[in-house]
Amino acid sequence: MLDETDAKTLIDRMGVAARDAAAELAYAPPARKEAALLAAADAVLAQQAEILAANAEDLAFGRDKGLSPAMMDRLKLDESRIAGIVESLRAVAAQRDPVGEVIAEWDRPTGLHIQRVRTPLGVIGVIYESRPNVTADAGALCLKAGNAVILRGGSESFHSSRAIHACMVAGLKATGLPEAAIQLVPTRERAAVAEMLRAVAHIDVIVPRGGKGLVGLVQAEARVPVFAHLEGICHIYADGAADLEKARAVVLNAKTRRTGICGAMECLLIDRAFYAQYGAVLVEDLRDAGVEMRVSADLAHVPGTVRAQPDDFGREFLDMICAAKLVDGVDGAIAHIRRYGSSHTESILTEDDATAARFFERLDSAILMRNASTQFADGGEFGMGAEIGIATGKLHARGPVGAEQLTSFKYIVRGNGTIRS
Amino acid sequence: MLDETDAKTLIDRMGVAARDAAAELAYAPPARKEAALLAAADAVLAQQAEILAANAEDLAFGRDKGLSPAMMDRLKLDESRIAGIVESLRAVAAQRDPVGEVIAEWDRPTGLHIQRVRTPLGVIGVIYESRPNVTADAGALCLKAGNAVILRGGSESFHSSRAIHACMVAGLKATGLPEAAIQLVPTRERAAVAEMLRAVAHIDVIVPRGGKGLVGLVQAEARVPVFAHLEGICHIYADGAADLEKARAVVLNAKTRRTGICGAMECLLIDRAFYAQYGAVLVEDLRDAGVEMRVSADLAHVPGTVRAQPDDFGREFLDMICAAKLVDGVDGAIAHIRRYGSSHTESILTEDDATAARFFERLDSAILMRNASTQFADGGEFGMGAEIGIATGKLHARGPVGAEQLTSFKYIVRGNGTIRS
Repeated sequence: MLDETDAKTLIDRMGVAARDAAAELAYAPPARKEAALLAAADAVLAQQAEILAANAEDLAFGRDKGLSPAMMDRLKLDESRIAGIVESLRAVAAQRDPVGEVIAEWDRPTGLHIQRVRTPLGVIGVIYESRPNVTADAGALCLKAGNAVILRGGSESFHSSRAIHACMVAGLKATGLPEAAIQLVPTRERAAVAEMLRAVAHIDVIVPRGGKGLVGLVQAEARVPVFAHLEGICHIYADGAADLEKARAVVLNAKTRRTGICGAMECLLIDRAFYAQYGAVLVEDLRDAGVEMRVSADLAHVPGTVRAQPDDFGREFLDMICAAKLVDGVDGAIAHIRRYGSSHTESILTEDDATAARFFERLDSAILMRNASTQFADGGEFGMGAEIGIATGKLHARGPVGAEQLTSFKYIVRGNGTIRS
Repeated sequence: MLDETDAKTLIDRMGVAARDAAAELAYAPPARKEAALLAAADAVLAQQAEILAANAEDLAFGRDKGLSPAMMDRLKLDESRIAGIVESLRAVAAQRDPVGEVIAEWDRPTGLHIQRVRTPLGVIGVIYESRPNVTADAGALCLKAGNAVILRGGSESFHSSRAIHACMVAGLKATGLPEAAIQLVPTRERAAVAEMLRAVAHIDVIVPRGGKGLVGLVQAEARVPVFAHLEGICHIYADGAADLEKARAVVLNAKTRRTGICGAMECLLIDRAFYAQYGAVLVEDLRDAGVEMRVSADLAHVPGTVRAQPDDFGREFLDMICAAKLVDGVDGAIAHIRRYGSSHTESILTEDDATAARFFERLDSAILMRNASTQFADGGEFGMGAEIGIATGKLHARGPVGAEQLTSFKYIVRGNGTIRS
């Protein structure tokens, strides 16, 4: 059993090593980081048998522990999932390197030339649950942006994560990058998590990857800043000026394409003007697709629906369940979303530009959409390549968090013996 | 005496009002914010007699309390300082409005058009000490960026801040903006500060304005994110390839132009190659200008210097005192700065591009300069207009913090009935 002192010693040691590695990574040539990721991908392929054997150990542990089928599924690796890990590593390797980019530059009357230049953030802590592939994905994105990373995988995926981590380290070694660039906390003890959350001297940002329980704990306990979203309670508002066919397609897709992702619609808001024209067609479509519709009193007459309880609004179902409600125009929708939303993603269905502009202007979710499915709330769909998660905080990173969002910047100022008068 | 419960009630009430005001400010037309600031400037001019009378009360209180002459000077207002406040308000009014700016936009193969649009941060908390003008400066910058602000002035400047705050509110009222956009904590009790630092539900960012004691307290206690620098331990490194005349001018300016600002040089690092060529001329120049030179052993032979104690390196003197040391080339300087620096501002004096590039690449201070005085570390000198402070953290805002740095962003995504496959 790891006590608090041991955990502190462990994280201090890993933190110092990470800080040293980060200082070196900050000026590592892009080609070397790319080569390290490609070498890691090769190692994952070469070590496939070892990774699967490690995963079998985890699966046996999970069965003994009585993990749910959903968790067992997230934990499980097979040849196709390993191929996915390899593909992700190669995709991140191929991405543009964000470090060193001149974000802005200008001249001053004093003769100074000022540049704002992108730099790595430093050290990222990633705390995740059962998916072993996060070891590779998060490690790769952090490295791409020149950051050192301290990974703390779920206890269920302990052996799998360790096997994948060994491949990441092989990639670093093969290219002469510091091994401490990607470290894995070598213990299942939870005391190490608590210590990471307090490690402001060693870790610049914590990214939790997992369910509401994990994210809520991290947000409540962390002294280190956190990039995360607690919930994705995504709304779609069907305005009176919506195009019916677009609305039907988007609503169905937003709920049913995949129900378990944070960009899935959880609440449908229907303008009374839309309802007057088209009735409850959107509710009926969802119902017919097998969605349990929990509706407000004025929609309760629609056959096959159930009455929503008050806590069905502002709830993340992550399932074939959807709340629905009539509202008075865009202002009614805005008021509802302000009260019940989670600042993740909301979409308006309308052909009216002024109404869309009002929706965009008066809401402050990380992502606001028009005539598009909320399921597009994703780093890949945004063209950012891989993402480490989606953030709903207002500081630094919002929306999908890719390599670029894992950077900071510094100012480079050039003069010629320039002094201030 | 305000107890903890009262303080919580007070900050909760102010926080809710600020959040409501912020929601409205987020879409306030730029012209209205500008008009509010101009009206506030007019009010300050019109209320000059009342402000000076309030300031006289504070000065009397300060004398009774035995404040130092330096603090009394920071506290004191006169006609010229009031003119300065008016000028600052008008300058911020005239600045470009950052809200709504499209920071980036791109198209996706799916047909989606994605924009990253600048938004206000929300609610800023500003905690300051004796300078009453911060009431106007900080209030104006926050308003410009569409943020509500909760100001907590020092107890010494209580009446002066209240009188200036009344003018800011007059400006808001005159233009129909919510009065709660700029609130001043109406008590001298310190319990209110502790409550602000914990108010994560109400305040998005805290900006402390004051000495190391205040900033250190805020950084240690705050649960709300903080934009600040604890110290400005600025270094200048005179490389072997420096131009002698530029070096002499910059070094003298960086130390002596104003010693009390965070951009003042506190430590001079001289390359042994520079010393071999030019001797201790930079040390002698500073000494002749009246600076107490605390030097390493290998410079101790220079007449009129004193031997540096170990804690003179990494020390912010804010006075006519400077540490100095010989180092082995740019790598010696980098190693010294990594160990003793405060990530604020460092400058290299060299004519060699590769050496400058190495300095820029291997250090991660918020501001790195070449052949320029560290005294340029200032929002005005960067062309940002006014600044609310300088940040040395890595997240969100670094370097001078002006209106633009007090913003966040959101994504606006436009489709045409676009669904995800």
